[in-house]
Amino acid sequence: MSENKIPYKIYLNENEIPEKWYNLRADMKNKPAPLLNPGTMKPMTAEELTPVFCEELVAQELDDTTPYVDIPQEIRDFYKMYRPSPLVRAYCLEKALGTPAKIYYKFEGNNTSGSHKLNSAIAQAYYAKKQGLKGVTTETGAGQWGTALSMACAYFGLDLKVFMVKVSYEQKPFRREVMRTYGADVTPSPSTTTNVGRKILAEHPGTTGSLGCAISEAVEVATTNEGYRYVLGSVLNQVLLHQSIIGLETKAALDKYNIKPDMIIGCAGGGSNLGGLIAPFMGEKLRGEADYRIIAVEPASCPSFTRGKYAYDFCDTGMICPLAKMYTLGSGFIPSANHAGGLRFHGMSTTLSQLYDDGLMEAVAVEQTSVFEAAEQFARTEGILPAPESSHAIRVAIDEALKCKETGEEKTIVFGLTGTGYFDLVAYQKFNDGEMTDYIPTDEDLAEAAKLLPEVPDEYK
Amino acid sequence: MSENKIPYKIYLNENEIPEKWYNLRADMKNKPAPLLNPGTMKPMTAEELTPVFCEELVAQELDDTTPYVDIPQEIRDFYKMYRPSPLVRAYCLEKALGTPAKIYYKFEGNNTSGSHKLNSAIAQAYYAKKQGLKGVTTETGAGQWGTALSMACAYFGLDLKVFMVKVSYEQKPFRREVMRTYGADVTPSPSTTTNVGRKILAEHPGTTGSLGCAISEAVEVATTNEGYRYVLGSVLNQVLLHQSIIGLETKAALDKYNIKPDMIIGCAGGGSNLGGLIAPFMGEKLRGEADYRIIAVEPASCPSFTRGKYAYDFCDTGMICPLAKMYTLGSGFIPSANHAGGLRFHGMSTTLSQLYDDGLMEAVAVEQTSVFEAAEQFARTEGILPAPESSHAIRVAIDEALKCKETGEEKTIVFGLTGTGYFDLVAYQKFNDGEMTDYIPTDEDLAEAAKLLPEVPDEYK
Repeated sequence: MSENKIPYKIYLNENEIPEKWYNLRADMKNKPAPLLNPGTMKPMTAEELTPVFCEELVAQELDDTTPYVDIPQEIRDFYKMYRPSPLVRAYCLEKALGTPAKIYYKFEGNNTSGSHKLNSAIAQAYYAKKQGLKGVTTETGAGQWGTALSMACAYFGLDLKVFMVKVSYEQKPFRREVMRTYGADVTPSPSTTTNVGRKILAEHPGTTGSLGCAISEAVEVATTNEGYRYVLGSVLNQVLLHQSIIGLETKAALDKYNIKPDMIIGCAGGGSNLGGLIAPFMGEKLRGEADYRIIAVEPASCPSFTRGKYAYDFCDTGMICPLAKMYTLGSGFIPSANHAGGLRFHGMSTTLSQLYDDGLMEAVAVEQTSVFEAAEQFARTEGILPAPESSHAIRVAIDEALKCKETGEEKTIVFGLTGTGYFDLVAYQKFNDGEMTDYIPTDEDLAEAAKLLPEVPDEYK
Repeated sequence: MSENKIPYKIYLNENEIPEKWYNLRADMKNKPAPLLNPGTMKPMTAEELTPVFCEELVAQELDDTTPYVDIPQEIRDFYKMYRPSPLVRAYCLEKALGTPAKIYYKFEGNNTSGSHKLNSAIAQAYYAKKQGLKGVTTETGAGQWGTALSMACAYFGLDLKVFMVKVSYEQKPFRREVMRTYGADVTPSPSTTTNVGRKILAEHPGTTGSLGCAISEAVEVATTNEGYRYVLGSVLNQVLLHQSIIGLETKAALDKYNIKPDMIIGCAGGGSNLGGLIAPFMGEKLRGEADYRIIAVEPASCPSFTRGKYAYDFCDTGMICPLAKMYTLGSGFIPSANHAGGLRFHGMSTTLSQLYDDGLMEAVAVEQTSVFEAAEQFARTEGILPAPESSHAIRVAIDEALKCKETGEEKTIVFGLTGTGYFDLVAYQKFNDGEMTDYIPTDEDLAEAAKLLPEVPDEYK
């Protein structure tokens, strides 16, 4: 099909929504390292994980050999309410840049949660319901995950208890109200409703909370209440599995018009969006069927890929979760002055970490003000107000398109536009007022944080 | 095609975006009454209107005989970035209600402005650009229109000055920041930048502003600055013309599956959404080709159709605009304690007023708390957080579907879901906290406000 036939938005039909998720790990020669029990320093077993997580999700977490997993019909029915999401040809951005490059973006923001998080939230809620649970618990920082999960739990009639980092609870009352509208019980963390919360409040009376603390409270409630389990929106392998629907739809839309991308670009915090977007492309690369440049974009303020260590570390600042081998800045690392809430995690998906260590993908770190410049240019030309997280990918997509302008190469660029920025306008206001600053940790900052990395047996180093 | 083949979302292709807007007035036997010059009490001429409005828009405003108007290619290209919008089958809501009715909604909220306002904003910006203007001015209350226009002006490189009602400017800083991100100059009204603003501030030092005052400031700037014109997002015939794209797409999507609706439901403030949604259906009705129930839904707190008078009145509280014959509560009427910002206008589109007076459509007024109950039910089942304005239509669609449950009738209901509620969470919070109240003006309130209706010559009564 000739190029000028490519529409602005490539929509698949509902019956083209993938029937199976793709499990990237099945095609990896070097599997991601197993989670370790910090007590025994042995790989976590299904038995150890099931008191915390839903049974079927534990099975998905541990399965690194089955390439395709059926998407249950109930989940596909929910997907039909907001999927397939469009793959958009950024004609207006290309024109504004004057680039010969062809730019496409997969837009995951057209649902009320405002991001791709809903793809895994509905799956996790479904398995909890199927197991006969009363409800689930979780933590949320910026609030995208909590919002998505509250929608999913409302749909399946599950109870949901969200521990929201206190500073976000107070600064983002609108996110909180969306969750409440969907029936979720939202508690600012640390709270007096849990042992760990009371302990932290006693030790640090004025604390505004942290994601690590909120995780600890959510896990405590899940494990001490009959009929509850804990769920998590990123980092885990099961989440990447569910998010593979992003990449599978992207690939199906490109195939429809015989488009072969040269590079796939995505922002990376814990890795849920990037791991999902690249899954089928990386699969082809692993199987030797095709080659693509795959680029992870992270904030310069929290540069786990580009300046972290590949080592076993705690997933939470409270050091109660299993150890994961990943690119990490150390579980005590606190990114400063960074508004891109969803990319503030100190570590990275174990799957993506292994792929990066194997040289199968690149990573680049970008600074906040340049990210918001890209966000503004994108908003004004393509009409969508992007989330700060997503705008990291926009920045690098624009940079690559401008390189094409210099060289005259007609490269095809695909990036993930994970969500919208309607709840991030405090950050936009800072940018509009010229008051946004950049922050890059010093080598000394990183060395200090890395001191907290746990000791593990030699075989896991 | 059998019913179970109808997808959750009916999307048209890009090449099915209508090529012409439909001008409902051409098929009306009783034309809407002309605008009157309040000085001469004679119909406004094109010459009188062109110092304020763009030339081509004046022509559209006055043309009540041409049934179809070409949509310029530049506007159609912009439409392709967010249109066609989906017509959604509300399978999940139907199931939750247990109704045999079939419910469809046309969802206009999937763009950054969050509402249908963008359909006319891009058209008005285009004609301003085509006329060689430097920029346009407007007022905004809740902020949907200002946001839409800022996106449109960014796209065509036009300067935009928005006068935002001061209380909204302060209470809705996020709306303001979206407009600024798109490059608009946003001034709280009343301001010291205009004569009328300074005069009002001198007389009422503590005022938080009003839409009428903001209109006056925007018109003053447009008429006293070379290369500027004033634009308006509702009420006017030209706006209904542009918004006919909503109805034309809805009809095309229904026709594709041989669906014949029994009733079309839309919320009504100034009438821009409702006039656009019903246009082709009302056209068939006017030409005797089909019959539909057409229902306007307005807030009980601002009941222009159900409790107003059909008479000439000022469109603005400042009494500087032309007189329009419409259902009105009087230009001095101030709706109290109503969060549905976009439905607070004291009057109604002249076209819709005439159709209502001719018995061609119905109107119903609903109370705020019942509207938010419907909004919450809709959000939890259909996954979209609706704007309070749109939720008025949801309320009546649900009520009609519940009547079908009683009678067993399988009626087909179509309603307009004009936008999303991401910037209305203060209202949702009130509802979630059980602090929302209803307000219905007394007969005395209405009689008092109606005293301000201007005297017009007998021939226009």
